[in-house]
Amino acid sequence: MEKDLQETIRNEDFLHKVVPVEEAITWIEDGMILGVSGFTLFGEPKLFLQKLAERGEQEDFKIDLYTGASMSESADGTMVENDLIRYRLPYQGNPILRKQINLGSVSYIDQHLSQTSETLRQGVIGPIDYAVIEATAITEDGLIIPSGSVGNSPIFIEHAENVIVEVNLNLPKEYEGLHDIYIPNAQGKRSPIPITDASDRIGDIGIRVDPDKVKGIIISNKNDSPSPLFEPNETTQIIANNLLTFLEEEVKSGRLTEELAPIQSGVGSVANAVLNGMKHSQFRNVVVASEVIQDGIFDLIEAGVVKFAYATAFSLSDKRVASLKSDLAKHCNKIMLRPQEISNHPEVIRRLGIIAFNTAIEADIYGNVNSTHINGTHMMNGIGGSGDFTRNSRISIFVTPSTAKDGRISTIVPFVSHVDHTNHDVDVIVTENGYVDMRGLAPREIAEQLIENCMHPQYREQAWSYFEEAKKKSGGNTPHILQKAHAWHLHFQKNGTMLLNK
Amino acid sequence: MEKDLQETIRNEDFLHKVVPVEEAITWIEDGMILGVSGFTLFGEPKLFLQKLAERGEQEDFKIDLYTGASMSESADGTMVENDLIRYRLPYQGNPILRKQINLGSVSYIDQHLSQTSETLRQGVIGPIDYAVIEATAITEDGLIIPSGSVGNSPIFIEHAENVIVEVNLNLPKEYEGLHDIYIPNAQGKRSPIPITDASDRIGDIGIRVDPDKVKGIIISNKNDSPSPLFEPNETTQIIANNLLTFLEEEVKSGRLTEELAPIQSGVGSVANAVLNGMKHSQFRNVVVASEVIQDGIFDLIEAGVVKFAYATAFSLSDKRVASLKSDLAKHCNKIMLRPQEISNHPEVIRRLGIIAFNTAIEADIYGNVNSTHINGTHMMNGIGGSGDFTRNSRISIFVTPSTAKDGRISTIVPFVSHVDHTNHDVDVIVTENGYVDMRGLAPREIAEQLIENCMHPQYREQAWSYFEEAKKKSGGNTPHILQKAHAWHLHFQKNGTMLLNK
Repeated sequence: MEKDLQETIRNEDFLHKVVPVEEAITWIEDGMILGVSGFTLFGEPKLFLQKLAERGEQEDFKIDLYTGASMSESADGTMVENDLIRYRLPYQGNPILRKQINLGSVSYIDQHLSQTSETLRQGVIGPIDYAVIEATAITEDGLIIPSGSVGNSPIFIEHAENVIVEVNLNLPKEYEGLHDIYIPNAQGKRSPIPITDASDRIGDIGIRVDPDKVKGIIISNKNDSPSPLFEPNETTQIIANNLLTFLEEEVKSGRLTEELAPIQSGVGSVANAVLNGMKHSQFRNVVVASEVIQDGIFDLIEAGVVKFAYATAFSLSDKRVASLKSDLAKHCNKIMLRPQEISNHPEVIRRLGIIAFNTAIEADIYGNVNSTHINGTHMMNGIGGSGDFTRNSRISIFVTPSTAKDGRISTIVPFVSHVDHTNHDVDVIVTENGYVDMRGLAPREIAEQLIENCMHPQYREQAWSYFEEAKKKSGGNTPHILQKAHAWHLHFQKNGTMLLNK
Repeated sequence: MEKDLQETIRNEDFLHKVVPVEEAITWIEDGMILGVSGFTLFGEPKLFLQKLAERGEQEDFKIDLYTGASMSESADGTMVENDLIRYRLPYQGNPILRKQINLGSVSYIDQHLSQTSETLRQGVIGPIDYAVIEATAITEDGLIIPSGSVGNSPIFIEHAENVIVEVNLNLPKEYEGLHDIYIPNAQGKRSPIPITDASDRIGDIGIRVDPDKVKGIIISNKNDSPSPLFEPNETTQIIANNLLTFLEEEVKSGRLTEELAPIQSGVGSVANAVLNGMKHSQFRNVVVASEVIQDGIFDLIEAGVVKFAYATAFSLSDKRVASLKSDLAKHCNKIMLRPQEISNHPEVIRRLGIIAFNTAIEADIYGNVNSTHINGTHMMNGIGGSGDFTRNSRISIFVTPSTAKDGRISTIVPFVSHVDHTNHDVDVIVTENGYVDMRGLAPREIAEQLIENCMHPQYREQAWSYFEEAKKKSGGNTPHILQKAHAWHLHFQKNGTMLLNK
């Protein structure tokens, strides 16, 4: 252990700062703001958060918790159970936390994931009392080497009064060299982000920190929570095939080549089905420029389809975690992790011309997308990076099965109950029934095609009826009858189905 | 005239291409796509459009019309009256055209103004059969010098099969040298846009064109349509003061200096009142990085408040047009016109950290903004550049009087009838009653403050009643009762007022 420690914490000054976790957690006081590492369960300071959450069982205090994105059960779950969180940003995906957000007892600031850094810099949020960052190693000259995610760690460290580093001895040493840490200056004093090719290395392999800010180092050996495996089912496979057909048509038309353009892929079962489908596609030498690297990306690298992938975090299943050490060794020049400010930056996304695909909760007949709120009211997870990508991408694609709850909900509705992505930013909608390429179409043309090509057949008649009545009675660029705009949702609330004749 | 012509068209080859406008308009055939210069009434090929519109009186043909933004009466008005337009993009502001869009007889593609260029490059729209571009001059080496706007002219010329140049002999020669023409390469083959300071010159003073594409040059001497003057009234003056108070508070808090950050200002009476108010403010050496340069910007330059301004177009009243020649001579190093792709580019807006202020039609209690559709149905103008700016700005501010139609409409409502800007992208809302700084607040906190500080007092009680009922019955992150979400709009439709007890 002692030798291990010296090989991991290779800077003498830092080595002297090692303290027991029990001591470190006592530094956190009621009302403090914590910025912690971690993004989609990977790279959290797991020991620190577990112990802090446990302290909350005995003691009454609250903190504001800033992270990269969603956190593990032991972070968001246990901390919320012990009533520790006052403000939470910029994203979450935990059922226990979600419940408290929807009860109004936790204040949730749902941010575009590229923008947390800007609001910190501007002094709109923060300053951070403690940044708590998991590290794979600390180098001779004091660079903090992150672990399975970069997320907001660099900006949290920059804007923290104090830093606690959780050095995890149980991580693959191959993480070192994988990260590319670049922090823009303040707005107005900033150079262009110098990425012109997705694989450009522009920063350091670790995070620079003022040693005086490092109050303590704790030692852990906890594993990341693996991500669930989303196996494709029949519907998600058909959706994936439809999406791949769209991309093939783009190649046929000459608008794309078989290298496509760099792709961003959300997480979940459809995304996995798409990645799976790409293995047997015509596409070659594809670049991934995304938020997370899932199992499927490793599969595509091994299949020779993907030639390079960057993201801000891993999101891997047990199986891939087991082989991660050797996978990283094998593919170290094909994979890179960047801060989420960079992976999700409008400048980079627009310049590279990324193809984004994300999942919709519902879309309306004019192509506006809801990806966060059930019935316009209850938060699911958050907007995450979907806004960063869709609005700046070359092609913005949303996938969704055309129905939910065994057909009782249509995901294509007259009027979405909440808007996260306006139809200006939605190019293609894909369901198991087909796809609509909305680019270059006027809203009424979009409606006709979405009803015919994407909507489930059993809902088409009532959709046509709404659309025809709206055109006749209201007219307009996006004809609506406000009295009936949410009739489908209300019918579901009352009768358990959106089918109006049931 | 002959001498004038040779001094204006300084390239021999181009001089030989002069044709009568009557000939040029016959080149346009049914079904063609035209990309014409012009943005907010300035810089249109006025003679060509007038003659083409007149041809439509006699003849049956339709075109797709691509522009920079809104066009003059003789363009959008007369052409629509003569039923010449099939597709229209990316923006309009004409009552005759608006009517046909809302009747569904013109297909309107309402685009973010920075994105028309990308869709052309990608082959999603176009190719353009004829680009028709107004010019102040053609240089010895064949550069086309634009006039009072740049707009989409460079990209239209790049993606046109044929080009017609309308050389206007009646324009100030001082336009030459004012423009900075920079065209990014295709996505994926593009360098960073090298603007790090708003005043950086990065391109040419004119537009390069393949001489073989120039089919003809026509000569005109028509003046631009001046923009209406929006005189501040009592309400707009109070709104402007509230906005200036917010900015002063930002300076006091240390988040901004008295130089502010580069500002983008929409057009209209509130925008004018703000610019007017800035004359007597503490702000100094302010930079304007906007879409249009209005009268007020010239006033602020002369008052020593603004040190540099760029935009993609002028939008000036009669009075300022009269002095434009001498104003341009005086301020030539303080003013620049860029392509709208650059003035509105996410990369540049985010890098410079622009403060955006735009006008809302309505906002909801959670801060979502509608800036285009009346009753979710009828298009007013279009999203224009408001999306480009708000979503990438440092601070995104929306202004609106709290009521319309003599108080019978509340512009703050429970649920907007259409969403153009989600609350992720709206930072501050200002009415004559006050302002709310939404940054760092959770949705329920935003609702409380918007009702108390921005909403008109006579609507507050019914707003509280909705909000309290929604919290109780629905709960959620953004509590709503879908049955009643649009009740205010419906009450207005039925009773001519949003006051539910009337």
